[in-house]
Amino acid sequence: MNAYRTIDAYLEKNMDKSIAELSALVAQPSISAQGVGLKECAALVADMLRARGFAAEVMDTEGAPVVFGERKGKSDKTLLFYNHYDVQPPEPLELWETPPFEPSLRAGKLYGRGVSDDKSHITSRLFAIDALLDSDGELPCNVKFIIEGEEETTSVHLHEFILAHKDKLKADACIWEFGGVDHREVPMQSLGLRGICYVELSVERLNTDVHSGVGGSIMENAAWRLVWALSTLKGPDEKILIPGFYDDVKPPSVRDRELMAALPDVAEEYKKRFGVQKFIKGLTGGIDLKMEEVFVPTCTICGLTSGYQGPGAKTVLPAKASAKVDFRLVPDQKPEDILRKLRAHLDAQGFDDVQINFLGGEPAARTDPDDPFVQTVIQTAEEVYEFPMEIVPMVGGSGPNYPFVHDLGLPVATAGLGHPDSRAHAPNENIRLDLYLKHARHMARLMKEFARS
Amino acid sequence: MNAYRTIDAYLEKNMDKSIAELSALVAQPSISAQGVGLKECAALVADMLRARGFAAEVMDTEGAPVVFGERKGKSDKTLLFYNHYDVQPPEPLELWETPPFEPSLRAGKLYGRGVSDDKSHITSRLFAIDALLDSDGELPCNVKFIIEGEEETTSVHLHEFILAHKDKLKADACIWEFGGVDHREVPMQSLGLRGICYVELSVERLNTDVHSGVGGSIMENAAWRLVWALSTLKGPDEKILIPGFYDDVKPPSVRDRELMAALPDVAEEYKKRFGVQKFIKGLTGGIDLKMEEVFVPTCTICGLTSGYQGPGAKTVLPAKASAKVDFRLVPDQKPEDILRKLRAHLDAQGFDDVQINFLGGEPAARTDPDDPFVQTVIQTAEEVYEFPMEIVPMVGGSGPNYPFVHDLGLPVATAGLGHPDSRAHAPNENIRLDLYLKHARHMARLMKEFARS
Repeated sequence: MNAYRTIDAYLEKNMDKSIAELSALVAQPSISAQGVGLKECAALVADMLRARGFAAEVMDTEGAPVVFGERKGKSDKTLLFYNHYDVQPPEPLELWETPPFEPSLRAGKLYGRGVSDDKSHITSRLFAIDALLDSDGELPCNVKFIIEGEEETTSVHLHEFILAHKDKLKADACIWEFGGVDHREVPMQSLGLRGICYVELSVERLNTDVHSGVGGSIMENAAWRLVWALSTLKGPDEKILIPGFYDDVKPPSVRDRELMAALPDVAEEYKKRFGVQKFIKGLTGGIDLKMEEVFVPTCTICGLTSGYQGPGAKTVLPAKASAKVDFRLVPDQKPEDILRKLRAHLDAQGFDDVQINFLGGEPAARTDPDDPFVQTVIQTAEEVYEFPMEIVPMVGGSGPNYPFVHDLGLPVATAGLGHPDSRAHAPNENIRLDLYLKHARHMARLMKEFARS
Repeated sequence: MNAYRTIDAYLEKNMDKSIAELSALVAQPSISAQGVGLKECAALVADMLRARGFAAEVMDTEGAPVVFGERKGKSDKTLLFYNHYDVQPPEPLELWETPPFEPSLRAGKLYGRGVSDDKSHITSRLFAIDALLDSDGELPCNVKFIIEGEEETTSVHLHEFILAHKDKLKADACIWEFGGVDHREVPMQSLGLRGICYVELSVERLNTDVHSGVGGSIMENAAWRLVWALSTLKGPDEKILIPGFYDDVKPPSVRDRELMAALPDVAEEYKKRFGVQKFIKGLTGGIDLKMEEVFVPTCTICGLTSGYQGPGAKTVLPAKASAKVDFRLVPDQKPEDILRKLRAHLDAQGFDDVQINFLGGEPAARTDPDDPFVQTVIQTAEEVYEFPMEIVPMVGGSGPNYPFVHDLGLPVATAGLGHPDSRAHAPNENIRLDLYLKHARHMARLMKEFARS
């Protein structure tokens, strides 16, 4: 532990400076969904890397630019940090206690849009690098950053970017953009993300809405067509009915089940937080609920829209109807394959009038919990946090980890400063300063130990 | 024909005055859906009646007031005019060429919200009364007006009002609020309206939208519950699956089919106007299409709403979902009975979590095409229009004619000044002045002939 005394002292002493840097980054809006401030933010991030002696580039894509930075270190080993500089839209603005792009420090927390997701993860990692450079005059290993600007809009161009720059991105391991502690202050090591295939299904059968007294008995109703098409995708027993949908599902292992069993039960928390009245499929809690939550693929209607949606009655037969539908995928399902099967199924069911607009997708990817790099991340966390890291073999959400795991061939581990009340994607997003310092301490240790491993 | 020379001359000479009165009525907004200007408009209408020597009252209901007016005439027979002073909301405002509540005269048409539906029908009938009083010094028959203020919001309180004032409303026959010519300039005599049962179906299973990565595999999805519930109401074969739904359907008669066969084909017009790609149930046009349009009950989804409806992808599991659904009813179906059967069906199918909010209903009602009053209306039209009136035994839309036919026991005939491009309920609603004059001439003749009949 003594080995890190200088580093920890540097971090304690320079917190204000790092938080000021984070505040400057948060004050620069960078809303990918609205195309706001992305170039400006990318330039700012590149400058922050250069200030640490990194060779940094702002690289164009078909969408928002990617910031790439690289600095050599003492050992031959290379650690790749994946982050993103874009943020969610700040709306609804009226629910913010202080303006989203005016970072505000209150009671040990910094508030602002993107402060947790993902800007503090960028600056706290740079802060760890500052401490290493101050203490040792050099980095213990080669460090690369890939910082994209479209994570909040499903990383549309990232996979292609990675394939086009495999050499540049060559590394031995990767630290993911997020991580954090749970409600018990236990740091979590999340090692897998489900894949996703997000589509909009739409039907248009008339050129205008028609009075329902005229059209009701004789004209095609887009809303009915949509409802009938959707009802062929999944029935009330929750079984997805697209032929071949489950073909490539790889069942979880005994080790997965063991790891999931060790995690806290979620049933009561979900009941309280979301008002769950009952779980589906007869689930009540415990290991079965936890396994089902993440190891089973889904078909979720995320939105429905058609015709009249105002108060009271309007007698109209809608010309158009559409639904947003996401399929969460598990290994080894592939979004393109699901898309193909969905189209074939709708056609076979007589719904060739239902258009499919593919809005984004990524396969699931996982890192082996017993990978040595994962063990290094876990061990270096233990002296910083009061608890050992808890392994989550798979989470229900999705993200662009597939190309890192499968195209770059990297073990991907998580570490970060999220906490249960971070309010990412919501008003009053915030970080805890104590966790900011802990993450910087953890990352400094990780770089040193990784270099030696 | 000579008998009406004085009357026709009066009408020709005084058009400007009557159109000025109509303009003043249109300039008074009276939007029932938004509760705007209803009392003011009712008072204005009552004053217009009083100006013709009517005893007029503005009578309170639980909703908008009803204007009742009565003036004795020479014969004992009593004619009741049913009208409404409320109008549809004017939105979308940007599509109006001139402001909706600033009546504008252009190329033989008067534009404004409510000018056709239904304010011109009020003033043109008063105009006919002016001509009769000018010519004869008295009315040929007793005349009553019932002018409500909630027609555009499904006449919620009218049925009750009529039951409470049956004596006051006693009459021998009724002229309905609407009517008009078709694209060939042929005046139509529409003698039946379908009934309606309008409901909102809604589901709420969580207290907030949940990230679909978290809830997708384990939580109830309101949008799915709604889709599944809807799909039990009607299948792609268009057969309504609620047990007992068709029990009280009275099939059309041979006479109905004869009358419908005489009407023009609608298939090509609907294809052109609404972009119909194909009709449902294998219909292609002709008598089968016309019969199906009006003599068959429906279940129409008028609107769907749930979760995320904006551009792109948002991965959310919706807490709530709802659908607007209208059932058009034929004789002798009753809305309360359909409502009861719908609830029982949803419960039996396992959808007791689907709430039903009843938004309005009225049974179908018809008048016998061979009723002597109908014949008088038809005969008096013939010398005013260039064509004899064409009988439509039933139309697909709905309206509050049931209590007039079944509680007051009246034959109800239609007559009016609508034309195919009236744009009722839409921007740039208008009337044609030539048809305004014709309707006044027709109504003056009707009152005289009805008195003698």
